[in-house]
Formats: sequence, C-alpha cells, structure tokens
Amino acid sequence: MGWPADVPASAHVFVASAAELADTVEVGGEEGHHLARVLRLRTDEIVTVADGAGRWRPYRVGNVTAPGGGPALVRLDAAGGPEREPAASFRLAVAFALTKGDKPELVVQKLTELGVDRILPVLAERSVSRPDPGRAATALERWRRIAREAARQSRRATLPTVEALGPLAALAGHPGLVVAERGGRPADALDSPPADEILAVIGPEGGLGGTEVEALKPWARLDLGPHILRAETAALAAATLLVARRSG
Amino acid sequence: MGWPADVPASAHVFVASAAELADTVEVGGEEGHHLARVLRLRTDEIVTVADGAGRWRPYRVGNVTAPGGGPALVRLDAAGGPEREPAASFRLAVAFALTKGDKPELVVQKLTELGVDRILPVLAERSVSRPDPGRAATALERWRRIAREAARQSRRATLPTVEALGPLAALAGHPGLVVAERGGRPADALDSPPADEILAVIGPEGGLGGTEVEALKPWARLDLGPHILRAETAALAAATLLVARRSG
Repeated sequence: MGWPADVPASAHVFVASAAELADTVEVGGEEGHHLARVLRLRTDEIVTVADGAGRWRPYRVGNVTAPGGGPALVRLDAAGGPEREPAASFRLAVAFALTKGDKPELVVQKLTELGVDRILPVLAERSVSRPDPGRAATALERWRRIAREAARQSRRATLPTVEALGPLAALAGHPGLVVAERGGRPADALDSPPADEILAVIGPEGGLGGTEVEALKPWARLDLGPHILRAETAALAAATLLVARRSG
Repeated sequence: MGWPADVPASAHVFVASAAELADTVEVGGEEGHHLARVLRLRTDEIVTVADGAGRWRPYRVGNVTAPGGGPALVRLDAAGGPEREPAASFRLAVAFALTKGDKPELVVQKLTELGVDRILPVLAERSVSRPDPGRAATALERWRRIAREAARQSRRATLPTVEALGPLAALAGHPGLVVAERGGRPADALDSPPADEILAVIGPEGGLGGTEVEALKPWARLDLGPHILRAETAALAAATLLVARRSG
C-alpha cells in the first residue's frame, strides 16, 4: 500500500492490466517511445508501472532496444513487489459544462492531476459551445489522451474515466450530487457522502439556471469562496477541496 | 460589510480611491470603455464599483455619453451606501517560480480570482525561464493588467499586488512562509499563522531543491495531495486550500 509518487522514479507508465505487472515487463508502443526516445532513460533508472486501476509496481530499466530500427522496446525488471494505491473513502467525479476554446483540455488535465476518478463534460442550458457528433467524438479522443498523459505525469496508479459529452439533466438523481454555490457549505463541513461517489457539477460561465439546479436534486451545496470564479477555475477549486476532504 | 459578488450586478469596475465612491461617479477611460462598449450597459443596470483596497458601493447606470464622439463616459448614481469587504483573518501571498510559456499568465489570473492578496513571481534554482530586465518589465506590466481584469471579472473589492520578479532566496525569513511538500499537513491542520500574512511558495517543475527549502526556513509544510502536480496546478491548489482555510 503506497503511492507511486513516493518512489523516486524517473518515469511512470501504464500497462493494460495487472497481469502485465510481472517480474519482467516489455514496454513498447507509445509508452516505450516515451521512456526510450522522449525521456531517454538509461539502464538501472527506476520506473513505476501501473495498470490504470490502482495496482502498480517499481521496476529498474534493463535494456532498451529498437528491433530492426523500429519502435523502441524497453525491458523492465521488477525492483519491488506489486503495490496498490491506498483505497479512497469515496470516488470523486466532476461534471463540467462545456466552455469555449481550449478550456476543457485544461480542466481535464488538471482534474486528472488532482486525482478525480471520473470526468464528465456536459451540456447545460447556458453552454455556449455545442459541438456536432463528429467534433464531439474527436474532442473525446483528445481529452482521453490528455487524461492519460496527465495521469502518467502526475504518477497516478488509476486512470480517470472521461465520459462522452452528454446533457447535464441526465445526471439528476445521482445520490452524491454536489453543486457549487455562494453560501454553500465548506468542503469539510459536508456530511459523509450518501453514495460511494461524490459528483460535483460545475456550471458554464453565467452559472447553472435556478430551475436547472432544482432539477438536479443536489445532495449538497459547496462553497467555493467569496468571489466569482470562471468556470474552469471553479472546476479546479471544487476538485482540490473535495480531494482534500477525501484525504483529511 | 459584504461582498460585491452578493449584489446581482451587470458589471464591476475599479476607481482609483475610496474618495471617488461618491453619490455620483463618472467612469471614463478603460473602465468606461468596458462598461459602455464591451458590455453595452443600459440605463438602470446595476454596477458595483470598488477602490481596489476593500471599499465598494453599488450604483445604477445613469447615462452613457461619448463627448465629441470620443471615449465613453458613464455616469453612475449610488444605489446603496458604501460597503467594505469582510476583513480576512490573515493576508494570503503566493510566490511561484517562473515557468515556461503562458503559464504565469494563467497563474496570475487564477490566483486573483481565488482571492490571493499578493502574487510574487520568483526565480528558483531550477527555474528554466530567466527573462532579461526588459522582458521582465513587459511581463510584469502584462501580469498586472491580467490581475486587474481578473479582479474585475471575479468582483473583488481589493486588487492583488503583483510584485516584480525577484530571487526566491529573498523570501527567506518571512514568518508565515509555507512550502508545498508531500507528507506535509492539510491546510486545516496548520497552526494559526504567526504573522498577518501566509506566504505559500511553489517551486518550478522538478520542485525546490532540498537546500533551497532549508534556506527558506519555512514556518509550515502544506500537503497538496498524493500525486505530483504541475507547478501551475500546485499554485492553484495551494491558493484554493489556504483561501478555504481563511474562510473556514
């Protein structure tokens, strides 16, 4: 039981399943390229490897090859037994109303670094950006790539789920739904979650509509401070406070 | 005593001093342009006006003129008495080691929205970006403009101070200095600040060096969670947690 970030490793990569966390691992593809060509790791450097579902293990770089001049293949030899990230008292999901430009990329990256388990881009009444299905699919692929890169960089043993864009109203009835609201409660004053997941919902610029909030039937209202935050700042602040609440 | 954000206003602008928060205010220059041309406010809309030092007052738009076709001049008539933002139990400063690209802009904007009082860009041992004096002066001007815009957008009655770029080492000895560190304490478990200001210091990518931290003689070490955060994410997370600690 421990966190990958507690190991002074040169890098962190993901494999597809816990079964691959064997005594010796051959890392190829994008992850192998990252280790060999981007980070240029040398023999004996330490690397942590995770299965994306909470299991991970420390390794030492064996040798780095490029069979036939092709993609890099990195052999890793176990430098310790398999570990598991400490279990959280609840899972944390954040739904954020789609905003303009590259803000969703920033939100997905930061929520992943902070430790959010599930990320849900949603369309609210006042959402300005409403992509067609083709663009939405392209965006989803990009967000999932960003989440994977951020999970690698922040040394998480879990990969967050990034859900496909959907209507905000579909979240109504989630038993642990939290809205951000002036005059709400501080994160550490919230009751124990009634569900195994807290789902924080962040509106677009201009906020959620009053009837929109009522329809969501929130379990709790979270205070994010005395000023008006931009949508992406609100998402980051809510995640920061709820992650701290979960650890505290 | 109250916050400008509690007033359902269409806009928020700054004047140079509390003396200008008279029963009638004529707003010209950049702020007048913002109200009349960018937001296109109409007669009777509500605007809050602040002096940048904590005093503010609600107004109603009187008339909007452009004398001789020149810059817009907006007359505001008081719609309530002068107010003051509630006093904080301590001031909050955040020093962040300069990072590449447009990250400092993001950090200045977000720290301002969150309510930080003093923002200090610094050069640490591992800082990659080291601008010459000319570039540093240009950057400082840009950061101050960004802070002003963010304070307006987030409806603060105070304007944060953005200090000129300086060496991290110059902060040593600040009595309320906090470093972000794995295994540090949660924000709500910190002792009462020994000074009227808490100064959170955020290192560059790669963190602060061990001797660098010792030289700072930190008063406290703050935990930012189990993962490794990018420098700009760490700055935002620290500010979020310390602002919540101050309100809580």
